[in-house]
Amino acid sequence: MPKLDDNWFTEIASEGGSALSFQVTEKLHEERSEFQSIQVFETAKFGRLLVIDGYVMLTGRDNFIYHEMMSHPALYTHAHAKRVVIIGGGDCGTLREVLRHPEVERVTQVEIDERVTRVSEQFFPELCELNDDPRAELHFGDGIRWMAEAEEQSVDVVIVDSTDPIGPAEGLFNEDFYASCARALKTGGLLVQQSESPLLHAKLIRSMRDHMLKAGFKAARTLLFPQPCYPSGWWSATMARKDANLDGFRERAASDRPFETRYYNARVHGAAFALPVFLREALGED
Amino acid sequence: MPKLDDNWFTEIASEGGSALSFQVTEKLHEERSEFQSIQVFETAKFGRLLVIDGYVMLTGRDNFIYHEMMSHPALYTHAHAKRVVIIGGGDCGTLREVLRHPEVERVTQVEIDERVTRVSEQFFPELCELNDDPRAELHFGDGIRWMAEAEEQSVDVVIVDSTDPIGPAEGLFNEDFYASCARALKTGGLLVQQSESPLLHAKLIRSMRDHMLKAGFKAARTLLFPQPCYPSGWWSATMARKDANLDGFRERAASDRPFETRYYNARVHGAAFALPVFLREALGED
Repeated sequence: MPKLDDNWFTEIASEGGSALSFQVTEKLHEERSEFQSIQVFETAKFGRLLVIDGYVMLTGRDNFIYHEMMSHPALYTHAHAKRVVIIGGGDCGTLREVLRHPEVERVTQVEIDERVTRVSEQFFPELCELNDDPRAELHFGDGIRWMAEAEEQSVDVVIVDSTDPIGPAEGLFNEDFYASCARALKTGGLLVQQSESPLLHAKLIRSMRDHMLKAGFKAARTLLFPQPCYPSGWWSATMARKDANLDGFRERAASDRPFETRYYNARVHGAAFALPVFLREALGED
Repeated sequence: MPKLDDNWFTEIASEGGSALSFQVTEKLHEERSEFQSIQVFETAKFGRLLVIDGYVMLTGRDNFIYHEMMSHPALYTHAHAKRVVIIGGGDCGTLREVLRHPEVERVTQVEIDERVTRVSEQFFPELCELNDDPRAELHFGDGIRWMAEAEEQSVDVVIVDSTDPIGPAEGLFNEDFYASCARALKTGGLLVQQSESPLLHAKLIRSMRDHMLKAGFKAARTLLFPQPCYPSGWWSATMARKDANLDGFRERAASDRPFETRYYNARVHGAAFALPVFLREALGED
């Protein structure tokens, strides 16, 4: 069996008894912020690698899939999103995708750790290229508190782009937080949140959806996409809408989108909601 | 950074500068057959693991996705497949899925290495549970030669369920082999072949499709599915039809299928053909 020498970064996914490794050519950065450890590596073939507390956050090669799927499906499902809030998302990749939508008038990114954003500005400048857009507001603070204090009926879309539901992000996966989101959302408003691996975390997805519905959302649906740098290589986001179901989206607008994408298109949007049999069963959709 | 001790099996994907590892609890089997090395491990959380020449072939936990997507999309695209040939597929998982279709009258599996099938019978009995079906014929020999000598216009569907295009399987990815398939297929016949990772091997997929069209197929399309145990966690199959395009499939029949699946359903079938922007570009579909 091959062994990985010191030129590899490895993340063990204990829930899968599996591990994913990237060959690294250089450690570009390492620090311990107030909240967590942050590392950046240059890899041999996956571009730059951002690691927080030992977990892969993103790579230069495949983050386009995640960031596009965290933003465009929600924004083309909402009728006309003017006001968007991103909870987490400190690397600014989701922010960049949201800002591509001309209908968006203001985006507030609420990241608890300013250092993640500063490190991203330095090592992933392409993700931060729209940070100076006058519609963008970078707020550094606790997303749970921010959402609890947000003005009622003030937001069209909330995007929760967080780390795993352990540590600082744990409070972003429960009914209290979802109730804050529901309160802050305008009529027809949408919440979308990264919801881990369909293969490894189906129970978590079900629990998130249950909590969303209990918190006052009318409908919840899960969309799927590949994410090679995350455990199992397969990832999901779960979307909830306040006052309406989640059938359909602005398909024509998605086809005629006035910006370039590398993963997202209108057919991919529809296809992402086609759930395999085992997941429909695990989510109680059958 | 965590290090993996001796209780892990690791496969390095040199094309990605990445590696995937599984925690193993026991080595169940190891041999060198006439053609290759064959190993079976018990893993901590992915079921049993079959390894050939150091490459992960399948795990007990996620092979259902691969085997279902190698068989049902082709069989529900073909109008009425009576005669099916599987090239490779020695673990018998694809054979099992093909045999679930009542319209299939005869399936010949042409595996070069009988030991793969014998090891699968011993360690993956669930994949081999339909091997005694009177419609199944297990032939051990060279798939390239078998296809070159096959009777003209004698087969409805050819499924190429092979290892990577290096070593013994290399000859299954070129124009000569596809010409043999086209010759052996009846009018309206279909070829479907595993075609590696959309993220890592888009050039190979394009070359396969070009070779298929040069060999006399009228249309070629690629379908996508997750496969957590393969490099990048994301995989593809490429389908070609002899005398017709590949638009549409027997959607009603797929919805009403008389057998159980864990991944495949009619919506997943349609969704698998929704290609992301970067792949459409790489395949010349834009």
